[in-house]
Amino acid sequence: MNSLLETFPNPAPGRAYVISHLFPEFTSVCPKTGQPDFATIELDYIPSEACIELKSLKFYYNSFRDKGIFYEAVTNQLLEELAASCSPVWMRVTARFNTRGGISSVIVAEHGNKP
Amino acid sequence: MNSLLETFPNPAPGRAYVISHLFPEFTSVCPKTGQPDFATIELDYIPSEACIELKSLKFYYNSFRDKGIFYEAVTNQLLEELAASCSPVWMRVTARFNTRGGISSVIVAEHGNKP
Amino acid sequence: MNSLLETFPNPAPGRAYVISHLFPEFTSVCPKTGQPDFATIELDYIPSEACIELKSLKFYYNSFRDKGIFYEAVTNQLLEELAASCSPVWMRVTARFNTRGGISSVIVAEHGNKP
Amino acid sequence: MNSLLETFPNPAPGRAYVISHLFPEFTSVCPKTGQPDFATIELDYIPSEACIELKSLKFYYNSFRDKGIFYEAVTNQLLEELAASCSPVWMRVTARFNTRGGISSVIVAEHGNKP
Amino acid sequence: MNSLLETFPNPAPGRAYVISHLFPEFTSVCPKTGQPDFATIELDYIPSEACIELKSLKFYYNSFRDKGIFYEAVTNQLLEELAASCSPVWMRVTARFNTRGGISSVIVAEHGNKP
Amino acid sequence: MNSLLETFPNPAPGRAYVISHLFPEFTSVCPKTGQPDFATIELDYIPSEACIELKSLKFYYNSFRDKGIFYEAVTNQLLEELAASCSPVWMRVTARFNTRGGISSVIVAEHGNKP
Amino acid sequence: MNSLLETFPNPAPGRAYVISHLFPEFTSVCPKTGQPDFATIELDYIPSEACIELKSLKFYYNSFRDKGIFYEAVTNQLLEELAASCSPVWMRVTARFNTRGGISSVIVAEHGNKP
Amino acid sequence: MNSLLETFPNPAPGRAYVISHLFPEFTSVCPKTGQPDFATIELDYIPSEACIELKSLKFYYNSFRDKGIFYEAVTNQLLEELAASCSPVWMRVTARFNTRGGISSVIVAEHGNKP
Amino acid sequence: MNSLLETFPNPAPGRAYVISHLFPEFTSVCPKTGQPDFATIELDYIPSEACIELKSLKFYYNSFRDKGIFYEAVTNQLLEELAASCSPVWMRVTARFNTRGGISSVIVAEHGNKP
Amino acid sequence: MNSLLETFPNPAPGRAYVISHLFPEFTSVCPKTGQPDFATIELDYIPSEACIELKSLKFYYNSFRDKGIFYEAVTNQLLEELAASCSPVWMRVTARFNTRGGISSVIVAEHGNKP
Repeated sequence: MNSLLETFPNPAPGRAYVISHLFPEFTSVCPKTGQPDFATIELDYIPSEACIELKSLKFYYNSFRDKGIFYEAVTNQLLEELAASCSPVWMRVTARFNTRGGISSVIVAEHGNKP
Repeated sequence: MNSLLETFPNPAPGRAYVISHLFPEFTSVCPKTGQPDFATIELDYIPSEACIELKSLKFYYNSFRDKGIFYEAVTNQLLEELAASCSPVWMRVTARFNTRGGISSVIVAEHGNKP
Repeated sequence: MNSLLETFPNPAPGRAYVISHLFPEFTSVCPKTGQPDFATIELDYIPSEACIELKSLKFYYNSFRDKGIFYEAVTNQLLEELAASCSPVWMRVTARFNTRGGISSVIVAEHGNKP
Repeated sequence: MNSLLETFPNPAPGRAYVISHLFPEFTSVCPKTGQPDFATIELDYIPSEACIELKSLKFYYNSFRDKGIFYEAVTNQLLEELAASCSPVWMRVTARFNTRGGISSVIVAEHGNKP
Repeated sequence: MNSLLETFPNPAPGRAYVISHLFPEFTSVCPKTGQPDFATIELDYIPSEACIELKSLKFYYNSFRDKGIFYEAVTNQLLEELAASCSPVWMRVTARFNTRGGISSVIVAEHGNKP
Repeated sequence: MNSLLETFPNPAPGRAYVISHLFPEFTSVCPKTGQPDFATIELDYIPSEACIELKSLKFYYNSFRDKGIFYEAVTNQLLEELAASCSPVWMRVTARFNTRGGISSVIVAEHGNKP
Repeated sequence: MNSLLETFPNPAPGRAYVISHLFPEFTSVCPKTGQPDFATIELDYIPSEACIELKSLKFYYNSFRDKGIFYEAVTNQLLEELAASCSPVWMRVTARFNTRGGISSVIVAEHGNKP
Repeated sequence: MNSLLETFPNPAPGRAYVISHLFPEFTSVCPKTGQPDFATIELDYIPSEACIELKSLKFYYNSFRDKGIFYEAVTNQLLEELAASCSPVWMRVTARFNTRGGISSVIVAEHGNKP
Repeated sequence: MNSLLETFPNPAPGRAYVISHLFPEFTSVCPKTGQPDFATIELDYIPSEACIELKSLKFYYNSFRDKGIFYEAVTNQLLEELAASCSPVWMRVTARFNTRGGISSVIVAEHGNKP
Repeated sequence: MNSLLETFPNPAPGRAYVISHLFPEFTSVCPKTGQPDFATIELDYIPSEACIELKSLKFYYNSFRDKGIFYEAVTNQLLEELAASCSPVWMRVTARFNTRGGISSVIVAEHGNKP
């Protein structure tokens, strides 16, 4: 579990409701070229006992600023660390990367089943 | 049940139809920072015996103007008080919050099952 | 059955196809304030033996110009009178009302089941 | 079968794939008023043995330029003649007509079942 | 299997997640007229053991620049060669071609079943 | 001067600033056909001593609901009556009428000179 | 002067105001290929003594449906005949033609000087 | 001068450049009805010796949350207090208010002359 | 003068009117990387004695498909060759290039003065 | 002059034409909070003897990734260093910064006079 991520108790633990956080300012570094990559990260989840705290989520995203990591790897790492932080009923990470070489890419990964 | 909310008899009680009210002027206060939060609230419901009166709905939303309350809590409170006011067949509250710290958030909570 | 509405024989009675008519110029009067209301009415239906004639549909919509009637009531009345005029397999009326008191509203009512 | 429509052998007959052709320049004549009607025609189909040749499709659509025909009738005629020309697994014609008398109309008709 | 396409090991082989690459700069030649055709190619797939390398995907797309090939044929060839390169769980190619003779066309072909 | 229009003293009479009011719910009647016309009215002006009161402006616009009047005439009448009510430094009325017979129309008339 | 065009007396002859009519349904025939052309025609003018009657304008535009005429010629002919019909202070015709051979074209011609 | 507004020295005092700050979360109270008003405030200015500090600008805007004040008055007060805080070469305040009674309003006021 | 470009006599030589042709399918090759570049070319001109023939314009643009040439050079070459072909009163070439390395570029060059 | 920026000889030195480069991936650090800032930088200039090389421009922009610098300062520094690199006839830098504290900001600075 990533130590930057903080949680707080779910205020409505008996209800299956959806929380979405959109972050258009994600940036990491391409391990091949050393040049920066940019993405918009959408996080959608149904909380169980805990919700992810917003400010810690921002600090967590910003911690990737100097990391060299590929599109497919970073999307799956985000999903795993975010899911580990709050053990949600269901979670989905959608990463939309800016155009590189004329190609723009989107990676969508899910954890658990949406009821 | 919130005392601001008024209802009137459903004019077509035998039919499962959907009523939606979109309110882009919701504002409350962040309990942590004391700074104002802003959201667009979409209310969708299938009425049973009663419909929510439009002017009272506006006064109800405006009553949150000075309340300190978090995103997840306010969305669930809105759903509970609105559902209590008219006992609908089904109800959904969608709260779309303005960007804070580069992150914009949406919370969606439902009451009952859509037939 | 409203006497303004006219129909013509369905040219393809053996096929379940969908006809949609969008009318952005619907206006009636608020019974409470006496002020005009405005809506866009979308009519979708699968015809059985008869189709609704377009010019008569326009005159029918325009006949509400001076009527005092609430959102929920007018949507259900439109559905009932339009369905009575042509006995469709399925029909849906979607009424999107202009902003009043900061709130814009949509009412969706259906008749029969979409195959 | 309309003699203007030409086909060519489906290059991938073993696969159920969808072909869509959008034509925003369809025009015919209103049989009542003699005034021109305008529509965007979307053709979607899953080919069986044959695909519709694009240039012949354009000539076929243009052959309606001087025909007097109603919305519902022309949409069903297009579907029947296009389906007869290539015997598709599934076909759908969507005709979106320009505003007349403040009302814009869409007619959607299907042939066969989408797998 | 096309020799231009390169792959790398899937970093999350145990998870069914979706990778999408959008390429708005595809161009080939019409075999009939000799004039260039243009398309936006969307590739969506669920990887199995291997992911398609982005730079090789771009070179592969660019290799069609001087080829004479019809819409339906090129879409199916892209799907076959891309699927052969990485043996995905599921793959879809969507080719949106620019307007020719007033008609714009979209071809969508799939390989395998989306779980 | 139209008796429905009310004014209040300009709070900044020494400054040439621009006030704009957009009203998308204007409706009158076509004198030829008796059918309703619809327009969006934009009023822009630089006040002198007086500003137009918003609620009275709405009632003034609504007073045209049953009047039979042509596009060019109504736009010029609006300009004359609105200018007479507040003697502005400069005023412009822009009336955008909905499509009739496939043609949508805009009439723009000014009073005085914009400094 | 084209005999289809009718005028009526300008209701505000002392004021230099602008009238605009947008017609998205103009169609003529390409003299070279015999295939139909399509355009949106925007007419803007400052009337002098006379205004162009809307229904006659539509019939005038529709009279080009079977005429073979090039883009540059038809735009200038429209300007000349429309200006001759009402002797305006200023007039402009903007013709936006649909894509042919991958190229979309706009022709803008003016008569007189905008004050 | 409003005591909430803070400034810092212009880093490029010799150059006439434009600074714009857009704030879509302005809210005050209607003095007549007691109901909240909402506006987007755009501030554009050419600094002289001082620039307005961003966080203090936000606190300044938020200080209107409970004030009863009309559209025209608040726009001119914002301009006067913001100009007094930094003595700019030129300044413009544009206030776009949400729809009330079917009318949306914009007030634009300037201080000094744009070079 | 490029030999692909053909002209025809201006049908309205006494009037200063503007002709615009938009071509979103321009492609050439980067001389540095050998990879294709893509641009939308807008040509605007006021003809003198001659107008550029549309089909020859398309063939002329397509003749750059295999040429290695930089953004700034190709825009100026287009302007020079297009102006030489028809000796216009005024001409402007606007070339909008697709994103490369995260940067999208526009080059605008004019010949003569717009009256 | 910044050592990262490279130039090449202007291919059309006798013509006053405009070059624009749009870079939506600019990021620096807020000196106050240490948190990242994001901006879209538009560079427009009329070259004199030299043009800015595109790849070096990207590396130059990326060199701000770890710098702590305020909005107004960075925009003026960009203008000064970019102008020093190529001595243009005219240059403009437009920096559009992402929302911070509910406020989005744009800074526009020019060097020289546009002819």
